[in-house]
Amino acid sequence: MSKFAIMGHGVVGSGTAELFLMNKELIKERQGIDLELGYILDIRDFPDLPYSDKFTKDINDILNDDEVTVVAEVMGGVNPAFEFVTKCLERGKSVCTSNKELVAKKGAELLKTAKEHNCNFMFEASTGGAIPVLRPMHTCLAANEITAVAGILNGTTNFILTKMIDENMAFDEALKTAQELGYAEKDPTADIEGHDACRKICILASLAYGKHVYPDWVHTEGITKLTSEDAAYASENGYAIKLIGSVEKNGDKVIPLVAPRFVPSSCQLYSVSDVFNAIMVYGNGFDEVMFYGKGAGKLPTASAVMGDVIDCAKKHGTDMSQFWEDSADNSFIADYTTEVSARYFRMSGADKSQIKDVFGDVRFITRKGAPDDETAFITHADEYGIIEEKASRLTGTILGSVRIY
Amino acid sequence: MSKFAIMGHGVVGSGTAELFLMNKELIKERQGIDLELGYILDIRDFPDLPYSDKFTKDINDILNDDEVTVVAEVMGGVNPAFEFVTKCLERGKSVCTSNKELVAKKGAELLKTAKEHNCNFMFEASTGGAIPVLRPMHTCLAANEITAVAGILNGTTNFILTKMIDENMAFDEALKTAQELGYAEKDPTADIEGHDACRKICILASLAYGKHVYPDWVHTEGITKLTSEDAAYASENGYAIKLIGSVEKNGDKVIPLVAPRFVPSSCQLYSVSDVFNAIMVYGNGFDEVMFYGKGAGKLPTASAVMGDVIDCAKKHGTDMSQFWEDSADNSFIADYTTEVSARYFRMSGADKSQIKDVFGDVRFITRKGAPDDETAFITHADEYGIIEEKASRLTGTILGSVRIY
Repeated sequence: MSKFAIMGHGVVGSGTAELFLMNKELIKERQGIDLELGYILDIRDFPDLPYSDKFTKDINDILNDDEVTVVAEVMGGVNPAFEFVTKCLERGKSVCTSNKELVAKKGAELLKTAKEHNCNFMFEASTGGAIPVLRPMHTCLAANEITAVAGILNGTTNFILTKMIDENMAFDEALKTAQELGYAEKDPTADIEGHDACRKICILASLAYGKHVYPDWVHTEGITKLTSEDAAYASENGYAIKLIGSVEKNGDKVIPLVAPRFVPSSCQLYSVSDVFNAIMVYGNGFDEVMFYGKGAGKLPTASAVMGDVIDCAKKHGTDMSQFWEDSADNSFIADYTTEVSARYFRMSGADKSQIKDVFGDVRFITRKGAPDDETAFITHADEYGIIEEKASRLTGTILGSVRIY
Repeated sequence: MSKFAIMGHGVVGSGTAELFLMNKELIKERQGIDLELGYILDIRDFPDLPYSDKFTKDINDILNDDEVTVVAEVMGGVNPAFEFVTKCLERGKSVCTSNKELVAKKGAELLKTAKEHNCNFMFEASTGGAIPVLRPMHTCLAANEITAVAGILNGTTNFILTKMIDENMAFDEALKTAQELGYAEKDPTADIEGHDACRKICILASLAYGKHVYPDWVHTEGITKLTSEDAAYASENGYAIKLIGSVEKNGDKVIPLVAPRFVPSSCQLYSVSDVFNAIMVYGNGFDEVMFYGKGAGKLPTASAVMGDVIDCAKKHGTDMSQFWEDSADNSFIADYTTEVSARYFRMSGADKSQIKDVFGDVRFITRKGAPDDETAFITHADEYGIIEEKASRLTGTILGSVRIY
């Protein structure tokens, strides 16, 4: 018998308990482990639940029970999660978390604490929800140099962008629909400004390259500047628009970046719609793989948390070896203006022959019902900064500009 | 320092050596393991390779070297692979294989041998090539009941079907193109008759449900009966045709099946083209996830083999816990005629009002240039056997019939 505890009984916490109790016998049979839910830590009372006897308000009940070898942290936020997780790890209890903020801000420190106490800090649920991506990337793809990672890491923005592309909704209307359906929060800033995707690309980048990439170091653009006109140019020319969190090798450095992109229909990410997430990983042996699934939600996130819990419980005492070092500074991060992409521009009052003079052989694109003085085109791939400099030389007004995937 | 050996220096074997030597320093740095290639077993001589000193013709060199903790088996076929793998496992050396025939036919026995000798038998490369799917399914999704698995498991047939749909090539022409490009073998039977996909769904089914599913127990249909007319109906009505290996729960039983299917554009498998593979997994917590990538090829397959090798070497002595029991008989396999799908039919001389009488409210579909007496329609979902019986009552001739995904 192996005992685990859950810290936090919100959406993910209650989902974790629910999923475990639903599949307990199956887990025993298929995974060969007799797992028991020992405690649920929450400051609130839940007297009517079938497992109400498991609740405690005192973390010491968990810390002092030597039978508890694994703890699921699903409280969210850095405080008091960081303190609680540290205490668990210091007692040699592995911790499995869905808390992307905690991992993005404190991952290196917690991984070090876990290593020092012969236990594991796992966080599959923190990135891509139910989607297995962190552990497969670190284990199954271990023989490769990861050249790049790029993903649709935020379901809320993907839902909004899908509405903008498929139904030509305006951004505000799509956001309102997302809020009505419960996909977006009342204050949607963290989603639409890209902060949520930023945390997730920090986790992917840190794991892929072995050094902690902090959120402050990542150039992050949201989706609030995208217009229906941009969406029309995309959809009428074979593109979707996706908010892409990416990191790629650039010599000895890496470039992490969050920005909307036109994704061509030849790319697997093109058809990832609504609240689904997907992550492409590129490497020098396997070329490319993609992981797709639900990036959020009660049971999907619980599935990822419990997957970590089961493995940690089964392999108690084994180093699961998912690790990165802390970084003294951001000198290994290349400036985002050196990232190479093609770019879409939408302009008014532009001069097509001047555009060709400046950018060379661009591809002009059209949309139905465009005003006469509107010009849109797609450049060849070049460094962001170089394209910016060239664009600054153009006459007319730039109304929209989006990187191409 | 940890030593591994490679058995077989064909395409995958040479790729395994190449990938390892290319990324050796990176593996050391990122995975924290100083791995050394000890031996390559092959009956042939390779005097001109930079690692020609590693070759041996005697398996005892590998068996008797206690420093070798992991062996990659990339010979293919059951003999002598089975004997060699058994010998390695009996010496406590973990074995990582790309050999789907070996796993599909002898998996349960080899897993038992591994367990008895405290080592691991791993086979990520046997299914989906480079794609991480077996280990993520067994570990990251461990808290779920797997309700179904369905995948594009054979790149050759997917290439042929892509040509038939996208370019309206006839089957024979598409096969010839695949052979010219080296995607199909001179004798393409194993691919086009579905035997290769069958082995892979056996492996996925065995792992998902914990009992060995033998290839002989799986109803397997190839793609040779598909015509350009069927492809036209598919592509003109929003479908692709894919050869799908699938297994699903049906009460206490499971139904494994290999058959071509019309896949609607709303499904992620729709856009998986050319030689790419992808596997959808369905479960009661995570809903659905998909794994996508290159299902074959020298370095992609080597990537999966080496991923297993690195993890086994790092966790030497740990039970990786990927396991299934042998099955005494096939009583847990439900008859394929009970599998529920909608169905596409193409007929000549049919009577539409009779079709409606027999099948209820079917959806009639059209294609450009169809003869006047051709009728095509899609039924509602029902058991295969029931649809067959209903179809037998129709006047006219059935020219084509394909399950809908």
